[in-house]
Amino acid sequence: MLRLGVDVGGTFIKAGVVDENCTILHKVSVPTGGDAGYQAVVQNIAHAAELAAKEAGLSVSDLASVGIGIPGLLNPRTGVVVLAPNLGGWRDVPFLDAIRKLLPVPVYVGNDANCAVVGETMAGAAKGSENVVMLTLGTGVGGGIIADGRLFVGGQGLGAELGHMVLAREGETCGCGMKGCIEAYCSVTSLVKQTLRAMEQHPDSAMHEYAREAGLVDGRTAFECSKKGDEAALMVVEEYCRYLANAIGSLVTAFRPDVVLIGGGLSNQRAYLMDKLNALLPRYVFAADIIGVPPVLRATLGNDAGTIGAAFLDRV
Amino acid sequence: MLRLGVDVGGTFIKAGVVDENCTILHKVSVPTGGDAGYQAVVQNIAHAAELAAKEAGLSVSDLASVGIGIPGLLNPRTGVVVLAPNLGGWRDVPFLDAIRKLLPVPVYVGNDANCAVVGETMAGAAKGSENVVMLTLGTGVGGGIIADGRLFVGGQGLGAELGHMVLAREGETCGCGMKGCIEAYCSVTSLVKQTLRAMEQHPDSAMHEYAREAGLVDGRTAFECSKKGDEAALMVVEEYCRYLANAIGSLVTAFRPDVVLIGGGLSNQRAYLMDKLNALLPRYVFAADIIGVPPVLRATLGNDAGTIGAAFLDRV
Repeated sequence: MLRLGVDVGGTFIKAGVVDENCTILHKVSVPTGGDAGYQAVVQNIAHAAELAAKEAGLSVSDLASVGIGIPGLLNPRTGVVVLAPNLGGWRDVPFLDAIRKLLPVPVYVGNDANCAVVGETMAGAAKGSENVVMLTLGTGVGGGIIADGRLFVGGQGLGAELGHMVLAREGETCGCGMKGCIEAYCSVTSLVKQTLRAMEQHPDSAMHEYAREAGLVDGRTAFECSKKGDEAALMVVEEYCRYLANAIGSLVTAFRPDVVLIGGGLSNQRAYLMDKLNALLPRYVFAADIIGVPPVLRATLGNDAGTIGAAFLDRV
Repeated sequence: MLRLGVDVGGTFIKAGVVDENCTILHKVSVPTGGDAGYQAVVQNIAHAAELAAKEAGLSVSDLASVGIGIPGLLNPRTGVVVLAPNLGGWRDVPFLDAIRKLLPVPVYVGNDANCAVVGETMAGAAKGSENVVMLTLGTGVGGGIIADGRLFVGGQGLGAELGHMVLAREGETCGCGMKGCIEAYCSVTSLVKQTLRAMEQHPDSAMHEYAREAGLVDGRTAFECSKKGDEAALMVVEEYCRYLANAIGSLVTAFRPDVVLIGGGLSNQRAYLMDKLNALLPRYVFAADIIGVPPVLRATLGNDAGTIGAAFLDRV
């Protein structure tokens, strides 16, 4: 039985034919085309699905289902996308109704960060776990929760927006307009801000030279310089890890997952980041001394998590 | 079909025979006796169950089931109480195994704040709602969540400890030892601390006289004086409501309930408190301008919520 998973991003739509073992057999990528309105994106998704099926020597109607991950706030039951800034500013788009007309098999939709946790739980770092919390650290902070083996999406499917839960009341302003969100401290965007502040305060820091050579300040600047012993960089990294561990600890207190996964670009810091998070976590989890804390692990499927997870949205 | 609900408190065990309409037909109360060890409490619970059944002209074996709410951290599946400070410091007590030996019908256990949200959803302010978040504001902050019509307890049943999720990183020290927990800002205990601080800073505040007459400073001091126009009291109340609204907003962002309930002693402030919370809430909920916010309502069953909810633990 073959499924199709589609990961809709701001720039590209990635579609993959996925087998029962969660292996992507064939994949294609087409431009998203968000500037041309949502109907164009819907057409492009259908086109990507056909291309991917063709790569597998099939047509879409030979597939069991199509699952689609969308970077936005949506109700997976009605398929209405309430808000998707990265797709050209969608607001209340009847996405599922529109795409269903173009695809001759059952279609499922989900939030992209939710698809990622589904993929990692089906086939990645959380394989076999019944309870999982995943944070995807990128421009923003995406969140996904598996609870009792099922994707947890909250009322109307509009919950689990973990990046916009509070970490520091009246704290840093978040891109969403609220203050003190987890995202305002833990996204890569926020890490870059923290890095820039430290560079300003420490003109002698090795981060300046590193940034000059790299041509930019990004999520790696503080991490890489801290590994080489730069004190200002290490302070940035340690502060950032405290923010992130505190956010994770609060989510563990609520959801008690078997495992916490970190995805997104920053997860490339691998053991250097995970070791710090695992060491810090107990101080931020309720009753950690009595009932322990789950391990924080790096997500392993990378960009494929969203495609695989989308393909299996029918299962969760 | 009659069920028995038992609400185990630090001082009294309350047991009630509950009918299918969620009406408590008969209730009894016996001392908890936590000082004499957990086996004594187990005996007292069995005794309370027998007394309540007898009040109804029955024996326990005539009842469909017994549900028991415990003030502590427990795994409702295994029935092991990991931690219950208010019952004389239980640690890893095999409670369900012990109580089952004394009761001849199916027995269910749950956390007391979880029982309260079950009761309110079955028969109280959230009747008929599929998604509910409830905060019980007392000495601590208890939390309960109904998600898709089911009680949400997290992995191993040890989650949903909403009072110990973060509100203000590195903020006020909480009774649990962590910093910045919701409980450290929103419990009645915390409100009293905030009141005392304001009284110290404002020797002319009417709160001093109010407290002298009442013989103590409690959760009412600031609220009652603010109603009479005392400025310092009003500042305490408004700050407290911002803390609480921010905490609620974060939980709404995660769980997207249809309704938020406030229980515990402070809910006696009724519309005065709820109006303030409803007015503040939109500023603390992700995408509130687009998808709105749920109403914050006062729990209506009072002390009976725990008994009724415990009786229906088999249903959720």
